[in-house]
Amino acid sequence: MSEVARVSLRSGLTAAFWEYERALMANDLEALDRLFAAYATTLRGDAGGLLVGHDAISAFRGSRGGAPARRIVATHVQEIDDRHALVVAVTELATGGRGQQTQLWRHDGTAWAVTAAHVAGSAPALDRRVWRVVGDPLVPPTGTGPLGGETVAVKDLFAVAGQRIGAGNPTWLESAPVENENAAAVDALLGAGASLRGLARTDELAYSLAGTNPHYGTPPNPRAPHRISGGSTSGPASAVSLGHATIGLGTDTGGSIRVPAAYQGLWGIRPTHGAVSAAGLLPLAPSFDTVGWLTRGPDLLAGVGAVLLPEDTAVPGDLVTASGLWELATPDVRDAVEPRTAGAVDLDWPVSDLPTWLEAFRVVQAGEAWASHGAWLEGRLDGLGPDIRSRFEVAATVTPSALAAARAVVDEVRDQIRDRLAGRVLLLPSASSVAPSALATAGLDEVRRATMLLTCIAGIGGLPVVSVPVETGDRLPAGLSLVGPAGSDRALIDLAHALAD
Amino acid sequence: MSEVARVSLRSGLTAAFWEYERALMANDLEALDRLFAAYATTLRGDAGGLLVGHDAISAFRGSRGGAPARRIVATHVQEIDDRHALVVAVTELATGGRGQQTQLWRHDGTAWAVTAAHVAGSAPALDRRVWRVVGDPLVPPTGTGPLGGETVAVKDLFAVAGQRIGAGNPTWLESAPVENENAAAVDALLGAGASLRGLARTDELAYSLAGTNPHYGTPPNPRAPHRISGGSTSGPASAVSLGHATIGLGTDTGGSIRVPAAYQGLWGIRPTHGAVSAAGLLPLAPSFDTVGWLTRGPDLLAGVGAVLLPEDTAVPGDLVTASGLWELATPDVRDAVEPRTAGAVDLDWPVSDLPTWLEAFRVVQAGEAWASHGAWLEGRLDGLGPDIRSRFEVAATVTPSALAAARAVVDEVRDQIRDRLAGRVLLLPSASSVAPSALATAGLDEVRRATMLLTCIAGIGGLPVVSVPVETGDRLPAGLSLVGPAGSDRALIDLAHALAD
Repeated sequence: MSEVARVSLRSGLTAAFWEYERALMANDLEALDRLFAAYATTLRGDAGGLLVGHDAISAFRGSRGGAPARRIVATHVQEIDDRHALVVAVTELATGGRGQQTQLWRHDGTAWAVTAAHVAGSAPALDRRVWRVVGDPLVPPTGTGPLGGETVAVKDLFAVAGQRIGAGNPTWLESAPVENENAAAVDALLGAGASLRGLARTDELAYSLAGTNPHYGTPPNPRAPHRISGGSTSGPASAVSLGHATIGLGTDTGGSIRVPAAYQGLWGIRPTHGAVSAAGLLPLAPSFDTVGWLTRGPDLLAGVGAVLLPEDTAVPGDLVTASGLWELATPDVRDAVEPRTAGAVDLDWPVSDLPTWLEAFRVVQAGEAWASHGAWLEGRLDGLGPDIRSRFEVAATVTPSALAAARAVVDEVRDQIRDRLAGRVLLLPSASSVAPSALATAGLDEVRRATMLLTCIAGIGGLPVVSVPVETGDRLPAGLSLVGPAGSDRALIDLAHALAD
Repeated sequence: MSEVARVSLRSGLTAAFWEYERALMANDLEALDRLFAAYATTLRGDAGGLLVGHDAISAFRGSRGGAPARRIVATHVQEIDDRHALVVAVTELATGGRGQQTQLWRHDGTAWAVTAAHVAGSAPALDRRVWRVVGDPLVPPTGTGPLGGETVAVKDLFAVAGQRIGAGNPTWLESAPVENENAAAVDALLGAGASLRGLARTDELAYSLAGTNPHYGTPPNPRAPHRISGGSTSGPASAVSLGHATIGLGTDTGGSIRVPAAYQGLWGIRPTHGAVSAAGLLPLAPSFDTVGWLTRGPDLLAGVGAVLLPEDTAVPGDLVTASGLWELATPDVRDAVEPRTAGAVDLDWPVSDLPTWLEAFRVVQAGEAWASHGAWLEGRLDGLGPDIRSRFEVAATVTPSALAAARAVVDEVRDQIRDRLAGRVLLLPSASSVAPSALATAGLDEVRRATMLLTCIAGIGGLPVVSVPVETGDRLPAGLSLVGPAGSDRALIDLAHALAD
């Protein structure tokens, strides 16, 4: 190549670099798409994870509404050959802090384009999608014990002395009193040597399985980048995934521990209904509310159980499954979970009755949710995000007679479930699918319904469930649930551990 | 190149990549140095900033004691030509969360080595070097006013209701009571519409100018990567630099606002002694303690002043300087500050008296520091880092007669300084040097002494100082101090603003 051609190529790179920077600040999607090479191998990574392929990168840009304002304060160019160069830039964010951007540029004979980019901004003081308050620690232990050195992310539904309960909604937080005492479960963990890392986000009033809080954003899911966290124990789950805390203390009414556990590849337990004290917990639907927790491994799941759970009163029996229930999951989840059921007796399950069961569950949940919060919500529904708002609007219409009828169904189905299982342990998927995309959240209501057809079995039964992480063929997290007999919680954790090994 | 040679080169790259990974996990410095290209242009960047050149990278590795444990969960290779490839790896940290590593590898004819690396880990729940507790917000505003939307990083020496005062020392924190009321300055900021972002770190008991807290680490300095933050208002300063908060509320006894302002390129004010209430502040040396603040720009510096400062009782006079004082600064700082003094009258300053002044200042500071904390420190000196410990050990030896003699000198010098300035505004460097390296902190005592020869002038004089950010020829932050007459604080901020424009 002639020296003239070489100089021309180099100045073209400089022009392309600055064109990209202007396009980024203007959120000019057309130019940004053009300046990234249109390959399936093009890469773009940031704190939210690595995107592979021009299409994925373009979809991400289209959904995020622009990049943070910044200026370039230094550039370093490593010329590789006539058609390739690495450009490393130091950026200064308009709001403070510095970042770095590393780009590999390639000239394809026509124009320069980026084939790989690695972008780092400046980490915020706290990730407000995950946390409301966080400390080093927020609350020190009050005793010594088996949880020494462990750190707890507390779902923002539990009372912590000196703090308000935020419940995932800014209007709620504003009117909430400062608590004088810790919730019972919080006290127990502190007494066993754990410290509180902070108060972690929840879906509004815990009335969702998604984690897509419209006020504070969706907590990240590091094992499944750009996918939703699962909820409503969304903040504690992400805090544990991210390594911000070792224990996520939350609640499970309709799946709010099991779903984020499945979506994020964590261990989780929904205990036997009533086994762990709900004192100091903001209720959603007391007939189904349970206090549960999430961890990264089974040993700590059991360790927390040894502190929070009463002694077992039942022994988990043989493993059973119900292949009819597998059909409610997507094929990738089915393929991930089914091999774990080898050797389990295949029960005949009345799958066609599940919609009726779920309807009864939802009516009781809604009626109790309105009983819990209706008085406060009157005149404040506008302060809720659209999904939760519409759920409470429906809840407001549940009549006493409809509630009574649904309770009767729930009571009857509970007996039916317990009779059918007869002390055995039912294996089924924790959620019907892997975590849906966080970039386009249409259709989450359908995902919620499909998952609740599965999760309502233990919910109605009042039965303990341990969710064990499994992986799909695409290496995405999913969950295997073990539903045990009431009062078998500690042994159920051990059984899940053995099954995973 | 033959196909055989090509395949051999590629497998060499794979081997080198994994050799690097093993060396990183083993902290094998020799191998890491060898696997990074020995060029002055080799790059390595992470959240702490970009390092340029093999030597700088090697020094960094030598100082950090190893990388966080991790495993590689995915790799993507872009082959550029026979001798260059980009390798992007997704990492999973042992403690949770995912990161990304982007490396440009080059084969120099002998071996593969990295010429550029960009490393991102997983951000912690909070940066414990900067913060002890942080929230969204930690404390909401109590009123509306001119500081609406602003966020405050409060030095962990001020009382905040519901929180303990940590004072930069874990033993202190453990025995500290929960405060029932806010410090007066905190209350005033909340009443004017600001919220509290959190409680930010300080040097132990504020008795340092470095920010190198041995218990929690040195807060980062984003404008001067891998250099110290300056202290003792180290956490609030870094919080403002990083964009975690817009206002850093701190204290300045011997330079604790001015030094971090200079090191980090921030605006800062040490007000007239006594102008801002110190109620609710943990004292160091009340004769010199002042409540001050740091911001990223002059408008907000003035905005906070309008809330915290009383009306002016004096008018700043003409600008003066004293070229004798410039000699106390390093050449780069002198070159950065001196041009700003053009037009200022050059005063004759008794530079040779400064060591005597500083000695008197230090004796009074030490005597009062021991009076403030000696009773608590008896038997607890082992809980302090070595620098602060040795300062308090000296402080414990100050006799009443030595203290009285030093007070007499301070009183006399105060009059002398005020007479010499006669209402005029003295321009001088805020610190004697740019921020020293954070990688090797030997010699910080000498740096502290050199800076205190400059800062003690306003300290003894009880005079207000505004520190204006300037930049050295190496593009590192430094500070220009304007020392005004007592009671001229608000006008002094405006004057500094005008001078900077």
